[in-house]
Amino acid sequence: MALRNRFTEKVRSFISEDEWLVARENYDPEENLAYESIFGLANGNMGNRAIFEEGGVRKTLPANYINGVFDKSEAFMRELANTPNWVELKMYYECNPIGIEDCKDIKDFITILDMKKGIVCKHYIVCSSDGRETLIERIKFLSRVNTNVGTHRTYFTPLNYSGLIEFENNVDGTITNFIDFPRFRVKHLNTLDINDMEGMGCYVESETRDFKLPIGTATAIQIRNDNEEDKCRSKRFSRFGEMATEFFDALCEEKETLIIDKYAAICTGRHFDNVYEACKKQLTLFVNNGFEKELKAHFNAYQQLWAAADVKITGDDELQKALRFNIFHLMSTPNPEDNGTNIGAKLIHGEEYGGHAFWDTELFTLPFFTWVFPNIAQKLVEYRYNLLDKAKENAIANGYKGAKYPWESADTGDEECPSWTIEPDGTCYRCYVADYEHHVTSAVAYGANRYFEVTNDEEFMATKGIKIILETARFWVSRCEYVEELDQYNIYKVTGPDEWHEPIDNNAYTNHLAKWNILKAVERIGHYEKNNHELYTHLCEELNLSKEEMSEWVNVANKINLKGTEGLIEQFDGYFDLEDVTISEWDENNMPIAPQRMREIPKQKTSILKQADVVMLMFLLENTFDMETQKINFEYYEKRTLHRSSLSPSIHCLMGLRVGDSKRAYDYLTRSAFVDIYNNQGNTREGLHAASAGGTWQCVVMGYCGMAIDSDGILHFKPKLPDNWGMVSFNIVWKGTPLHITVSKDDVVVKSQDSIPYRVNNEERKSASQICKDCIVKN
Amino acid sequence: MALRNRFTEKVRSFISEDEWLVARENYDPEENLAYESIFGLANGNMGNRAIFEEGGVRKTLPANYINGVFDKSEAFMRELANTPNWVELKMYYECNPIGIEDCKDIKDFITILDMKKGIVCKHYIVCSSDGRETLIERIKFLSRVNTNVGTHRTYFTPLNYSGLIEFENNVDGTITNFIDFPRFRVKHLNTLDINDMEGMGCYVESETRDFKLPIGTATAIQIRNDNEEDKCRSKRFSRFGEMATEFFDALCEEKETLIIDKYAAICTGRHFDNVYEACKKQLTLFVNNGFEKELKAHFNAYQQLWAAADVKITGDDELQKALRFNIFHLMSTPNPEDNGTNIGAKLIHGEEYGGHAFWDTELFTLPFFTWVFPNIAQKLVEYRYNLLDKAKENAIANGYKGAKYPWESADTGDEECPSWTIEPDGTCYRCYVADYEHHVTSAVAYGANRYFEVTNDEEFMATKGIKIILETARFWVSRCEYVEELDQYNIYKVTGPDEWHEPIDNNAYTNHLAKWNILKAVERIGHYEKNNHELYTHLCEELNLSKEEMSEWVNVANKINLKGTEGLIEQFDGYFDLEDVTISEWDENNMPIAPQRMREIPKQKTSILKQADVVMLMFLLENTFDMETQKINFEYYEKRTLHRSSLSPSIHCLMGLRVGDSKRAYDYLTRSAFVDIYNNQGNTREGLHAASAGGTWQCVVMGYCGMAIDSDGILHFKPKLPDNWGMVSFNIVWKGTPLHITVSKDDVVVKSQDSIPYRVNNEERKSASQICKDCIVKN
Repeated sequence: MALRNRFTEKVRSFISEDEWLVARENYDPEENLAYESIFGLANGNMGNRAIFEEGGVRKTLPANYINGVFDKSEAFMRELANTPNWVELKMYYECNPIGIEDCKDIKDFITILDMKKGIVCKHYIVCSSDGRETLIERIKFLSRVNTNVGTHRTYFTPLNYSGLIEFENNVDGTITNFIDFPRFRVKHLNTLDINDMEGMGCYVESETRDFKLPIGTATAIQIRNDNEEDKCRSKRFSRFGEMATEFFDALCEEKETLIIDKYAAICTGRHFDNVYEACKKQLTLFVNNGFEKELKAHFNAYQQLWAAADVKITGDDELQKALRFNIFHLMSTPNPEDNGTNIGAKLIHGEEYGGHAFWDTELFTLPFFTWVFPNIAQKLVEYRYNLLDKAKENAIANGYKGAKYPWESADTGDEECPSWTIEPDGTCYRCYVADYEHHVTSAVAYGANRYFEVTNDEEFMATKGIKIILETARFWVSRCEYVEELDQYNIYKVTGPDEWHEPIDNNAYTNHLAKWNILKAVERIGHYEKNNHELYTHLCEELNLSKEEMSEWVNVANKINLKGTEGLIEQFDGYFDLEDVTISEWDENNMPIAPQRMREIPKQKTSILKQADVVMLMFLLENTFDMETQKINFEYYEKRTLHRSSLSPSIHCLMGLRVGDSKRAYDYLTRSAFVDIYNNQGNTREGLHAASAGGTWQCVVMGYCGMAIDSDGILHFKPKLPDNWGMVSFNIVWKGTPLHITVSKDDVVVKSQDSIPYRVNNEERKSASQICKDCIVKN
Repeated sequence: MALRNRFTEKVRSFISEDEWLVARENYDPEENLAYESIFGLANGNMGNRAIFEEGGVRKTLPANYINGVFDKSEAFMRELANTPNWVELKMYYECNPIGIEDCKDIKDFITILDMKKGIVCKHYIVCSSDGRETLIERIKFLSRVNTNVGTHRTYFTPLNYSGLIEFENNVDGTITNFIDFPRFRVKHLNTLDINDMEGMGCYVESETRDFKLPIGTATAIQIRNDNEEDKCRSKRFSRFGEMATEFFDALCEEKETLIIDKYAAICTGRHFDNVYEACKKQLTLFVNNGFEKELKAHFNAYQQLWAAADVKITGDDELQKALRFNIFHLMSTPNPEDNGTNIGAKLIHGEEYGGHAFWDTELFTLPFFTWVFPNIAQKLVEYRYNLLDKAKENAIANGYKGAKYPWESADTGDEECPSWTIEPDGTCYRCYVADYEHHVTSAVAYGANRYFEVTNDEEFMATKGIKIILETARFWVSRCEYVEELDQYNIYKVTGPDEWHEPIDNNAYTNHLAKWNILKAVERIGHYEKNNHELYTHLCEELNLSKEEMSEWVNVANKINLKGTEGLIEQFDGYFDLEDVTISEWDENNMPIAPQRMREIPKQKTSILKQADVVMLMFLLENTFDMETQKINFEYYEKRTLHRSSLSPSIHCLMGLRVGDSKRAYDYLTRSAFVDIYNNQGNTREGLHAASAGGTWQCVVMGYCGMAIDSDGILHFKPKLPDNWGMVSFNIVWKGTPLHITVSKDDVVVKSQDSIPYRVNNEERKSASQICKDCIVKN
């Protein structure tokens, strides 16, 4: 039976076919927190976890995060501030709560995420201890059209009783971050006002405690039955401290269905001068439009998003669904209208990492947006540009020059990575990541450059990107230390991508990327010197950049200790002297099991890696290493990599494909693709793995479909589809031109909107890339 | 095994022998709310429900009520305001909460109320799903010595694991009244400030919303192990909106016991000018004294209370325990220092009836205090005197003269009985009680008069009591309407004790008590006219009372339509014309089952009574009716009384004994005695039945031991012990002299503190009362 047929006719009509649905078919409270992330909704502006609307649930972490709304207060770091919970709608019969945990039995339970339409639907019958059965169905969405509103509709049907049903509509301003982590719990908002919004419903006005950013949260309720009869019998507004509550009730006959629409508007000082008036306006408009009209517009918006972003794979339904799941959450998160926000490491679906942007953005998620939603990618790279001045301060404060981007970045560009961490068992340890993990700075330059290469956004590069690349290059030059006896520049005391060895000297990844960063700066500014001398002069002036400095840059770059470019490359100075431990056991998912030796000696004394490091380097700087070198290093390091970061498997998939290890590549793909949809790491409760989501897309498009830009800047495809896959099709925007790509085992078809398709077979790959180039020329 | 032996040695030593313990031996969450009342503690100043200190419990109604702290706000009535919850102390291991509902299994569960010592103790082992077992033991008390402080001690023992235990100490200002009754939920306090009390702990300052009465709630924590080693590893204060929280933790070895003392001080503007400073002072003193020293003083205080109040019954252990249970809660509730407060109908243990004083005080609970704790009784009668002016306003506002006391009385003396009631099914109905149930006014006079008769408190009578009696008499005179053709005064449109017939005319109870009230006023003022003319003149002046008015009073009183004094007395005009329905079925407890006919016609059209009415009248005005009349009326009305008020069974026990129906009397006694200890009416969750508690004491002392004052003011005893009872002994204070009474089937021994006992056998009852009289003369 199709999943949607398990819903009643009323709800069914809104739901897509099974291939678009992620379903939860049993209620186990232990799974609540993970499903709150998995079914979490986001609309570019805000994210809302999938709590049970009726409340009364023991395991739950209600959260409504808004992109860019950060606060520190007593927290370890500025973090996305949890804002008032607008979702709750309690239900009672004779004072007895009715809900998923306020019952004796649950029947016919199913909840689904409809990825095609961006809605979450629920259906279950709760049976009370006195024999009453109530069918509850729900549809929830955050409007993708008007990103300041969210809503849910409840279909409430007493199956075997009649009577007065009471409702309690709450907007809860008591909310905190880290509700169930006592050590980290912080309340980031002050509640300024609670009122009934001139009779409309419930309104809570809050502000962030540090920056006094105002946040308005308003809700209104409508209740009727199938016959459009208004069923609201009485409505009474109450305030309970920081909680705004509206009580209302309805007489309901047995088998009659009450339809309760809860509308919410959430407006912040980031976008509105007067958040109260903004909420009132947005809520009024929303209520007047009504649930179904907004839903239709929301469906259309998702239709357009999917028209751009869907990747169709035939022959692998499970992976197809997981891929869509990753794309769904990825494209739902960032704000296409706002270059003051970025993408958190857990998207906007959970509290881990405080919503901070890491290098994950530039190397894992930005590629997806760069290729699929260049308008969003633009905002993400502009975010880094907006914080360039702060990165410059950051460099100076640390004794360097140029711009040093923070390991964790929120709204101010300050380093948000805490210096101390507390484990659940109470162990405190000094966290050196912010001190040593400097490679994020080259990742920012890499992301900006790749954005330009793909989009050809000359405006961005000329006014913003070039400054990022120049200032980060300047940082790296200052970061290098000259060793006279070797006539070499070394980079001491860093943490590379593999965080289990720190601080170390001359991390191959860091040094290679530093060189790349410096030389890319020289190349880009050289291009302007030749082609746009006015801009060149302007930039040199603005950045106080001299010919002498640039020539010094080239000198430094060419003398950076690279740890080699051929053969087996040592990850850092002394890595080969560590006790060599290799992986000898794999779990049922073919993922490595930590060798016994790791429990005997400190892990930094072994050769075991947390995540791809040299392999990551080779993925990024493909043209620097010959294929044999890539293969040697992949094979060597793969045996020593435990993938304890979700950034690692996708890179190993991509590199495995490149060097010809397609069996392991597919294992890594599934590891990356399924991490959240199946909560494979057990930490999905804390949010979704953004890097896995972006990495999974890269695996399919750049790995299996082999999309790449060669050293001449030519787009080409080298497909390596697994045997069971029939065809993969997807869209990209190449230098401003939308292209539809269809990849099969035999050929690659590239189609631009207004041109006939170019078909090439696998033997004519070079010509395929020429055709792509032609597309651009043509358009 | 003695119950205390189920605790570890550490706790066991504090616990009394079984006869003093009420135990809960299984954990069923459905019973939580009733046990929160049953194990609720009070210390004269405040009452605190017995929640589980570690929180995380689904069914719970945390409450800390303070005598005299009322607020209305949006509530139906001014009600005891729930004040910040100071009890909570959450516990975690690696972020996993540890507690009664945060576990997979519970072992060795037992919680007890130790009535002798005024403490609640808990013992249980919680087993987590990952196999950790933790023994939790607790002792909690509200100090009877310093009535602004309360405390609990936790003995925390990880039985099979070691590690860091985290604690979260909360003072929760988000608290509301009627948390689980959506329609009635009100937050009565504004939170003014949250701070760490200069590093001491958690402090919440609130105020009542209407009168801005300040309330400070402060807590401090101490944590150590058995070896007196301070175990507190870190302490961090946080505020979460209206919640003050202190996090701290301790490393704990397997089988090591952490002892966590939580001290609380609660001070209000009723007793302190600066509640912050008061809390700081009280808390500092308390912490310096320490848990055990305060506990010892508290034990001593309860020892003294029991020395005055214990009633020992041999041969009936179950009733003995229930009687003590009623006495325990009764004597714990009112404030001996404060004549601005009274006793709520549910004591101070629950939220029903808002902590309001009804006629229940004067006729059910005041007798106990009058005879046992005259100092407390004095405060209770002074409470009525303090509200006399408001009662006079109340009379005038209703078109009458004199003083009309409100049916429900809080702190202001305004009528707090709501005019509308909402049932759980949403039915609203007009409640006429405040409009018609006027007999509370004569009950107030009756209580004041009886207080004087027993205590001989001339000062009270001369300055306060007399004014109550005069002004209430004046009310009744104005309440009567003259019917010329009958030369009779009628009282129209009243509700008598039986609230199922209203409004009715000439309720025998109301009219008789009105007459009694008027004539008592005349008698008392006449006494002063003769013996204290100065006072007499002063009173006449102050009350604007003339000879003419008083002579009119006598005229009216003698012509009140009494509905007879002999034979079967009609409850009110037309009662005998109602459809006569009698009770024909009784339940397993020998309590009447509502006749079928009551479901067919409105109950006011039948002769069935809610509760004792004519029978109540005869109980109070014993000397007005001959025994035959009392017997006839008891037998008639008993067949028609459903006892749907907890005020009814004790009166039927007392009257049954008087007219010779001892079998039914005992059924009524158990009905009254066990109502809360066994939650027999299913509503103990809402508080304890004050009237049953006081009525039960009266049944034993006035009923079975036959204590009474005869028409000559002589104290006498006519014991009627049941066959299974051996002896009953108790204390009273008769006209200022403490007497110890021992009643057996053969004789009554009356002993004053410094005199030899007087022994009389049953045949010499008259002389027994003479002896009692002699006692007084002698002392």
